[in-house]
Amino acid sequence: MPLGGAGEIGMNFNVYGFGSGLEKKWLVVDCGVVFGREGQTPGVDLVMPDISYLTELREDVLGIVLTHAHEDHIGAIPYLWPMLRCPVYATAFTAELVRNKLLDAGLEKQCPMHVVPLGGHIALGPFSVDFISITHSIPEPNALSISTPLGKVVHTGDWKLDPEPLVGASTDDARLRRLGDEGVLALVCDSTNALAQGHSGSEAKVRHSIGELIQGLEGRVAVTAFASNVARLDTIAKAARAAEREVCLVGRSMHRIIAAARASGYLKDFPALISEADAAEMPGRHVLYLVTGSQGEPRAALARIAQGQHPTVSLGSGDTVIFSSRIIPGNELAIFALHNQLASLGVEILTEQDHFVHVSGHPYRDELSEMYSWIRPKISVPVHGELRHLAEHARLARSLQVPEAVVLANGQMLRLAPGKPEIVDEVPSGRMCLDGRVLVPEGDGIGRQRRAMAFAGLIAVTLILDVKGRVRAEPAIFLEGIPDEVGGPVRAAVLETLKRHNPKKADEQALGEAVRRSARRAAQSVWDKKPVTRVEVVWV
Amino acid sequence: MPLGGAGEIGMNFNVYGFGSGLEKKWLVVDCGVVFGREGQTPGVDLVMPDISYLTELREDVLGIVLTHAHEDHIGAIPYLWPMLRCPVYATAFTAELVRNKLLDAGLEKQCPMHVVPLGGHIALGPFSVDFISITHSIPEPNALSISTPLGKVVHTGDWKLDPEPLVGASTDDARLRRLGDEGVLALVCDSTNALAQGHSGSEAKVRHSIGELIQGLEGRVAVTAFASNVARLDTIAKAARAAEREVCLVGRSMHRIIAAARASGYLKDFPALISEADAAEMPGRHVLYLVTGSQGEPRAALARIAQGQHPTVSLGSGDTVIFSSRIIPGNELAIFALHNQLASLGVEILTEQDHFVHVSGHPYRDELSEMYSWIRPKISVPVHGELRHLAEHARLARSLQVPEAVVLANGQMLRLAPGKPEIVDEVPSGRMCLDGRVLVPEGDGIGRQRRAMAFAGLIAVTLILDVKGRVRAEPAIFLEGIPDEVGGPVRAAVLETLKRHNPKKADEQALGEAVRRSARRAAQSVWDKKPVTRVEVVWV
Repeated sequence: MPLGGAGEIGMNFNVYGFGSGLEKKWLVVDCGVVFGREGQTPGVDLVMPDISYLTELREDVLGIVLTHAHEDHIGAIPYLWPMLRCPVYATAFTAELVRNKLLDAGLEKQCPMHVVPLGGHIALGPFSVDFISITHSIPEPNALSISTPLGKVVHTGDWKLDPEPLVGASTDDARLRRLGDEGVLALVCDSTNALAQGHSGSEAKVRHSIGELIQGLEGRVAVTAFASNVARLDTIAKAARAAEREVCLVGRSMHRIIAAARASGYLKDFPALISEADAAEMPGRHVLYLVTGSQGEPRAALARIAQGQHPTVSLGSGDTVIFSSRIIPGNELAIFALHNQLASLGVEILTEQDHFVHVSGHPYRDELSEMYSWIRPKISVPVHGELRHLAEHARLARSLQVPEAVVLANGQMLRLAPGKPEIVDEVPSGRMCLDGRVLVPEGDGIGRQRRAMAFAGLIAVTLILDVKGRVRAEPAIFLEGIPDEVGGPVRAAVLETLKRHNPKKADEQALGEAVRRSARRAAQSVWDKKPVTRVEVVWV
Repeated sequence: MPLGGAGEIGMNFNVYGFGSGLEKKWLVVDCGVVFGREGQTPGVDLVMPDISYLTELREDVLGIVLTHAHEDHIGAIPYLWPMLRCPVYATAFTAELVRNKLLDAGLEKQCPMHVVPLGGHIALGPFSVDFISITHSIPEPNALSISTPLGKVVHTGDWKLDPEPLVGASTDDARLRRLGDEGVLALVCDSTNALAQGHSGSEAKVRHSIGELIQGLEGRVAVTAFASNVARLDTIAKAARAAEREVCLVGRSMHRIIAAARASGYLKDFPALISEADAAEMPGRHVLYLVTGSQGEPRAALARIAQGQHPTVSLGSGDTVIFSSRIIPGNELAIFALHNQLASLGVEILTEQDHFVHVSGHPYRDELSEMYSWIRPKISVPVHGELRHLAEHARLARSLQVPEAVVLANGQMLRLAPGKPEIVDEVPSGRMCLDGRVLVPEGDGIGRQRRAMAFAGLIAVTLILDVKGRVRAEPAIFLEGIPDEVGGPVRAAVLETLKRHNPKKADEQALGEAVRRSARRAAQSVWDKKPVTRVEVVWV
């Protein structure tokens, strides 16, 4: 398989291979996480791809190349890099944020981070990789041109075509056109907004709108936005200054991102900041808080403010909170709960539903069409989106005369060359959950066990018998998460089953199973639900 | 407290009182449920208000009046009516659907259902209640005019102003204007769309759009909509016939609603239906399925079709599914998963995002304004919405010159007359969860226990000691939903703690607690999480 790729939806982890047999070399593009959800993965903080198939080939993995610094592209580095231990390549701003993660994990000395200049180039065995500046909702997004002796792949990463990105480089469209003229085998491309007609709009337009909006507000103003959207933070800070408000950052990731942006040479004219303590002393009319927590995250600054539990920031009647962000699907209820808490304080809430305070960082259909007109690939490989977006992206690519568009499932290996593109292999794929500090395969029993207990509670029974099989003590019965009225019938059923048996040690398993079934059946008869039920026999 | 009300957000249950001291009489308007969610209330099917404060006053509850047949207005009848055992009043279509519920619960003989004609009147002690036809997204929505010697309340129920509702009566706006002319003390009014500018639009407009859309489709077509929206079902069925498609209902609630609508005299010209078996035999081009499951409910027809597990309906490439519905907040991920499964079959998906296939059943701001211009109440009491909607509704009412607008929290009793409106009492309020067949208070331990186990699993330890405090057998240790590597350290910690203690029976509690803490600490040291931990001591 000379050249192939496999992607994970959500947490980006793309693998390119070149060569055959023992000569095959691998290149990884991006290494991201998604966040766990109580409904699906209770008690799990982060979810990331299972890369065990690749760790076996670790000697031949030449590097991890990062396109940009969003969590769904870099967040798994501290957890998955130790399994690969290969060099990591990124531009300065991304490298700075990865370095923070490595420091937190105590890996900064072990993991070789290579900083690539904007528009830079790296050579990794058969792969020749060019970084091409593009625009997105974070500084330094890069498309990659990955050349091999058998052809060239353009991997877009996350992108949009923002004519005025405000912070950082513009899209190097001349370079992209030239690549198209030279001939591109495959375009591996962002599908997030493949269902959206038109153009995603520009940060500059948001700047104008937010400026006017803040100009008209009285009282305290708090604005929440994705901390990584440095251009947006700059917009908000400048709008604040224009409205004679001092800017105060609230929330750790705001400080982190501003520091990283400055360390990478951005935000040279960012307004001076005031501390939370100073802001608390100022008249509300002259303060603007830039706060974390636009997604309703319960421990973020905005949630604590809304609950009246923030140590320095309090909002009330006459104050305004602007959500300069979108709702990430799945976060609706948390965000609406946050809105309600703010409303109960008398705070006015402005969102992208009612005001022009946000634009997406991903290409709408007009932008996708423009990209295809530049690159004119032989093959389109939609990535970064749910299946429905990938399917629609493929349909769009075909309508734009791309000869082949292939939607891959996680783990599928696509041969791009030579010959017609073909799915030639399916590697084991899956998701790993960061559960506490332990990485657990998502398909593993413990996630299922926990959801089963969440659904119907647990019964655990310890039977205490002597060697002759006589009951030596009342069984210990734990009932957890089960209504009170279930306890009596379960105990009666356990005792009844014990009585009916003449247990011997050889018979232990059958006895345990009989007790388990009778306890479960008793619960079901009262409650209409079947708890998780466990039985142990102890011989004294 | 001569006249008051208390509402539950989400599950509608409003209480009006009149009189004082022992003479006080109560009237309940609506009795609804909301659905449980795995993230908040795992294993719970339905959530309903805790009405224990009212059951104590049961002798003085004169009746339950139902405005319309949506689940969030009638769904709790089988569970809460037995606590009140008062007469229930509804118009024919609503009564028919409630009767189905009572039959399922075996309560049909006990619960006296009184059918009130459209525009009808009932007298209940001091309350004189008029039913006023209005429009919504279900047949027979009613506003109520509740007159007492101290004034009149107009309780809107759920409504919109649909100039062409297609099925059922139009809004009796002449009556509403007349009420306003006569003088209304308070308007208790739907707030769902208080944030939405403009008008909610008409079912007739959707009929036109869906007709054109279905006309242009090839292959099999399935349309999913809220089954209770009978006008919409009628629209879709007629669009099907116009496009030379036979209509096949799939899913129990579709059949139930159509039957109830016919029993109440609606749908006289509804097209003839074909069976699932017949539909399966017909060319796809001539079939339209009307299916349940627009919210991604896992057991509904559409979910089973999307998983390829429906016994008679299969969809694939060239087929289309139309979602003629909105996304109820919180259902996004389930619905998107459904979209993705359908996309993986090659099915094209059309939604209100991309086509005009749905209108809301609740009033936008222009409709609210119109209602206020008719009723001109002294007091506005926003209900039916999240706090943010209620707050915005109150703001709107004040801007429309309503002298008082009061946002109530659940359980708050508002005195409407005599004198200025005032919150005079706060009755115990809360939510009850239908967990299996047991009703459990939401604040109760078992919900918390189950979420705690979902988060960090469970350790249960049985210690077996003899009367002298000697360990008579290895402790039985259950570990559920916990990574394997935690087991060893927990067992070691339990044994170590046992060794350090010289347990006596009098000391049992302290021993149990010491073991519990040490087991928990051991888990935390390996895993960084604290499981629910239980210990029992058995003496043999």
